[in-house]
Amino acid sequence: MTYRSPSTGLTVRAVLFDVFGTVVDWRSGIAAAVTAFADGHGLELDAHACADIWRGRYQPAMQRVRSGARAFASLDVLHRENLDGTLRELGIDPDGFAPGELDQLNRAWHFLPPWPDSVAGIAAIKQGYIVGPLSNGNTSLLLDMAKSAGLPWDLILGSDTSRAYKPDPEAYLRPAALLGLEPGEVMLAAAHEADLAAARETGLATAFIARPLENGPAAATPEAPTGDWDLAGTSITQLADRL
Amino acid sequence: MTYRSPSTGLTVRAVLFDVFGTVVDWRSGIAAAVTAFADGHGLELDAHACADIWRGRYQPAMQRVRSGARAFASLDVLHRENLDGTLRELGIDPDGFAPGELDQLNRAWHFLPPWPDSVAGIAAIKQGYIVGPLSNGNTSLLLDMAKSAGLPWDLILGSDTSRAYKPDPEAYLRPAALLGLEPGEVMLAAAHEADLAAARETGLATAFIARPLENGPAAATPEAPTGDWDLAGTSITQLADRL
Repeated sequence: MTYRSPSTGLTVRAVLFDVFGTVVDWRSGIAAAVTAFADGHGLELDAHACADIWRGRYQPAMQRVRSGARAFASLDVLHRENLDGTLRELGIDPDGFAPGELDQLNRAWHFLPPWPDSVAGIAAIKQGYIVGPLSNGNTSLLLDMAKSAGLPWDLILGSDTSRAYKPDPEAYLRPAALLGLEPGEVMLAAAHEADLAAARETGLATAFIARPLENGPAAATPEAPTGDWDLAGTSITQLADRL
Repeated sequence: MTYRSPSTGLTVRAVLFDVFGTVVDWRSGIAAAVTAFADGHGLELDAHACADIWRGRYQPAMQRVRSGARAFASLDVLHRENLDGTLRELGIDPDGFAPGELDQLNRAWHFLPPWPDSVAGIAAIKQGYIVGPLSNGNTSLLLDMAKSAGLPWDLILGSDTSRAYKPDPEAYLRPAALLGLEPGEVMLAAAHEADLAAARETGLATAFIARPLENGPAAATPEAPTGDWDLAGTSITQLADRL
């Protein structure tokens, strides 16, 4: 397994993965956790709509950190704040629950289910490359997820090690530096083209993984990317074959 | 597998390991690399003495970082500087080699052999706990070592993520924080009692692993610790049994 990136001109040594949407199916996982929570409290809730609202608050919350409007706070903290906002948007008072109950629901982000090809695909790529997440998730979130889903990462460097959120350049450059690699020796694999564009801007190699159902069947996205990424495929196992 | 530390009063969730001496046999590994290097250059060298001198420069080099006399530099950088010093001490001019040759020898620290019980012991502990290194090694060094020796860590947070060298308290506290754990939920396993004493001072649980031959047969150390650590054993597999 040796792959030289046409865009960076270097042999890829590490393949790092976006996680939410690319490796795990956050929408199904969060909707299942919300359903269990709602059932336990006799609440009437559209669990998928709730998941979409919660996730919709993700980028704006990180943007306040990226812009310097607030100091770095881990994704666990942002998710927890966003849960309060989500409940309020749905007309539910977050202060109406016993202490710890919403913290527990917030931990659903630590235990999201992988897409069917993720574990096998990462294990195959691990035979020839360093594999790890390159995610906005914090280290403990990514660690819980790895242990519960069986994701065979070589190492886990959460966003709290770089203290930067993608697409901030530092979020891509710091992991490469910790690996002792040139940016062009690191490939980002992601389902989101904005993430890949920022990675390419900082000098990384890029691979697109189509996840058309990430946002649900009503919001299906095309399998073909619009950008000219080094590699593209519809699963991580297919990426393994192409590497 | 559940272990409550008598000294911290908390249930241990993560077992983190000192690496050089505790998990890997640095002296044999470095002596073998030095022997190969000396043979390749027609040098007459006592390879074990060379390993001991090289390792002897380890603590003083880190002390300059700990004291603030110099900015943080990774262990790869310190090892490389110490190699020059070691060669000079042995009457060999480090400038007499082609560029890259000493860098290559320096990388022997990335590929040290594990003690016979290390891989099985860490794998057993991983069934019930988070496992990882808590080492002065940098992330890329620990990653190369894990991949070559088959050390099944859950995650690797090198000293370049905390930018602190043990026994600086930050070197123990930062990994615990990244794991989302209280210090008392983290156990340090180490062959060196000074390391364990500093870990206990910052609130960690402690386990002593006897490695009497770490410094060679002429400098054998006792199997029984002098300190009152939470656990003690003569191998990592034994530690697994006691957890």
